[in-house]
Amino acid sequence: MSNYIFKPSAQTASFGPTVWVEFSPLAAKYKAINLGQGFPDFEPPSFVSEASIKTTESGGFNQYARSAGHLRLVNAISTVYSPLFGRTLDPMTEIMVSVGASEGLFVAIQTIVNKGDEVILIEPFFDIYTGAVTMAGGQAKCISLREYKEDRKPGEQRSSRHWKLDWSELESAITDKTRLIILNNPHNPTGKVWSREELLKFSEIVQKHPHLTVISDEVYEWMTYDDAVHTRIATLPGMYERTITIGSSGKTFSITGWKVGWIIGPRAIVSAISMSHQYVPFSVSTPHQEAVAIALEQVEQRNYFHELRTMYQAKRDKLVGGLRAAGLDPVVPEGTYFVMGDTSNIKLSGDQGQNTSLTGMGLNLRDWNVCRWLTTDIGVASIPPSAFYSEEHAKEGFNYARFCFCKKDEVLDRANQSLLKLKDHNNNNQK
Amino acid sequence: MSNYIFKPSAQTASFGPTVWVEFSPLAAKYKAINLGQGFPDFEPPSFVSEASIKTTESGGFNQYARSAGHLRLVNAISTVYSPLFGRTLDPMTEIMVSVGASEGLFVAIQTIVNKGDEVILIEPFFDIYTGAVTMAGGQAKCISLREYKEDRKPGEQRSSRHWKLDWSELESAITDKTRLIILNNPHNPTGKVWSREELLKFSEIVQKHPHLTVISDEVYEWMTYDDAVHTRIATLPGMYERTITIGSSGKTFSITGWKVGWIIGPRAIVSAISMSHQYVPFSVSTPHQEAVAIALEQVEQRNYFHELRTMYQAKRDKLVGGLRAAGLDPVVPEGTYFVMGDTSNIKLSGDQGQNTSLTGMGLNLRDWNVCRWLTTDIGVASIPPSAFYSEEHAKEGFNYARFCFCKKDEVLDRANQSLLKLKDHNNNNQK
Repeated sequence: MSNYIFKPSAQTASFGPTVWVEFSPLAAKYKAINLGQGFPDFEPPSFVSEASIKTTESGGFNQYARSAGHLRLVNAISTVYSPLFGRTLDPMTEIMVSVGASEGLFVAIQTIVNKGDEVILIEPFFDIYTGAVTMAGGQAKCISLREYKEDRKPGEQRSSRHWKLDWSELESAITDKTRLIILNNPHNPTGKVWSREELLKFSEIVQKHPHLTVISDEVYEWMTYDDAVHTRIATLPGMYERTITIGSSGKTFSITGWKVGWIIGPRAIVSAISMSHQYVPFSVSTPHQEAVAIALEQVEQRNYFHELRTMYQAKRDKLVGGLRAAGLDPVVPEGTYFVMGDTSNIKLSGDQGQNTSLTGMGLNLRDWNVCRWLTTDIGVASIPPSAFYSEEHAKEGFNYARFCFCKKDEVLDRANQSLLKLKDHNNNNQK
Repeated sequence: MSNYIFKPSAQTASFGPTVWVEFSPLAAKYKAINLGQGFPDFEPPSFVSEASIKTTESGGFNQYARSAGHLRLVNAISTVYSPLFGRTLDPMTEIMVSVGASEGLFVAIQTIVNKGDEVILIEPFFDIYTGAVTMAGGQAKCISLREYKEDRKPGEQRSSRHWKLDWSELESAITDKTRLIILNNPHNPTGKVWSREELLKFSEIVQKHPHLTVISDEVYEWMTYDDAVHTRIATLPGMYERTITIGSSGKTFSITGWKVGWIIGPRAIVSAISMSHQYVPFSVSTPHQEAVAIALEQVEQRNYFHELRTMYQAKRDKLVGGLRAAGLDPVVPEGTYFVMGDTSNIKLSGDQGQNTSLTGMGLNLRDWNVCRWLTTDIGVASIPPSAFYSEEHAKEGFNYARFCFCKKDEVLDRANQSLLKLKDHNNNNQK
């Protein structure tokens, strides 16, 4: 008889399957169009694929990279970002390459947050943040972006710009134990692009606190639409020294599967994070880093970021149009490749949305049931935004569904077509 | 005036540069032959490169992989390892793919070790273990392998098999707080391949403790020489349920830069580790996983592991011969691609070995100075083994230097030639 008992460590015991475990298999089972998980369903641009083929064929890039980042890549990142940051970024000390933005976030959080420290998260937030905070022994303290409909001017469309933070809420959330605040700009899932004025106000509050560091997750930095301007908080007065900015080649070049991201920040913080990174993956794929470097070296001459923005703006407009036609009154995003549809008009009856659950997760959460029903009965998978809120504030996400538009045009067209079925459903409900 | 103060978290504040930061640049500066860091200086076998080129050219592998591992790869791992483990390994629940063995080790340790728990490390050990234990808030408790020269039979060569653990030391190191013990088999840096008898004794001791889990780092599993037989501790009676075995495509296919490793173990532990892994890198490179899967699918028909072993045995014999000729009485390794040379005969005078330090690290450690002097004056870089001991036991490594033989034959030949200069040095010292 075995006497062995396995108990996961306290800092990981609360971890369970995430929202993706329910919705990706559900979409597959019901052959729904998957606008759930945020990855492009198209190939990267040909110059990126060619860089990868060239690197693979040439050989010589198959062994460990420098732990903090392959030289050609940190140099390329410095070249692209130095003008954007308005300072010369030292490739050897102010830049670190990570295994996707995820691992960058993870090691940054481990290096900044002590057991018992508080970390401010702005809801709704990317669900990976909480796991990293929990593993560091930190306490997440959540404050919400809320939609201020009264701020809409007459005739102005519903937009992510009406989602705002209550500054007094931020001020009172910060205590002596607060060590970190995570900003996401452009913001997933609302699509909000923080205005310069907002970031100045934010910075002013942060700078009152000597021990408060900011992580700015800017992985959607190139996806901004209409007249939205992406401001890097690290470029505001006094902020560079206390800000770690996170970037992603996965989002930028439609290669989420390569897992190459980076962090940029002051030498003191980046070097401490690099020390931790040595003990997590030690280093990042050498061939992928070489290929991403080759790609970054070409973005200017190709005017690539402009091209990417133009492509995504058209996709955004297409999906926004479809959601509107289906009665899902979208919050038009100023950035990212996500859009929140308003599902208030959908009335589920009986156990609709519950009876199809594959995992039994979120059976009592309205948005989970609506998203399940949209997947199984309407044929379009999305993600319930309450997964991006703390349990306490989950209900703030109940009337929304997050759709992503990083998909082929024909897929978005089919999704829009399917969503029109909602009109019959709503009409039937109104009868 | 800025009021900002950055202080790394308690669990990462002790991290500093590692031994590589001294010796890789030193080797480069003095144009020494680098037998320090353990990565092959040759290209992977052509069927591995071809798998990579095929995957890159075909497209379709550029987006996020399944978090716990790309299907084709976990299936291939199950096919290769199920016969070796004597059980059918479920690819979906008993295998997880990690960002190299490093990240597998890291997330396994985070998932098993609580703050305040004790972890037994067997010295000398791979220096990455301590960082991961520290980040979990665990306490490393170190016991040493020691060379028992008296166990050599008449005429028997010096061998890693004479490095042994004192079982009573192991027994008394285990307390109520011990949660984990990390085994490395074959063992870096000694080259020891643990015998079945040793592992049975080890298992017997471990199984007295209900809360004790074993991580068996077996990344050098295919590199065993002469009549050494690699036994997987997970296959011994009662051990599977409490053992996580770590493997590496980097070591196996000479692609350390791809960062694809795996863990194998019982469902309960692997699934808990997979939950943590979601919050660290989330997933591993999709194209690399596809290519490694294609390579693993071919190992049997190509008799690849046999070929790899034959190649490395010849390289081992070459370097062992060179070290012997140079008077560095080598501990002949039964496994891995490392060999410890005995530097007792080298007498440094004045500040030899200190005056060339680039970082000021290890100025008072004999092996650091000898390794620096070997690099600068003899032209061959190695690694001081005291870096693989706790501070308390550092002196046990003082009379050795670790050389690696995962290098081209011509490089090993040149190293052997350079090492002959030692004979003059030693002769001069004896005059």
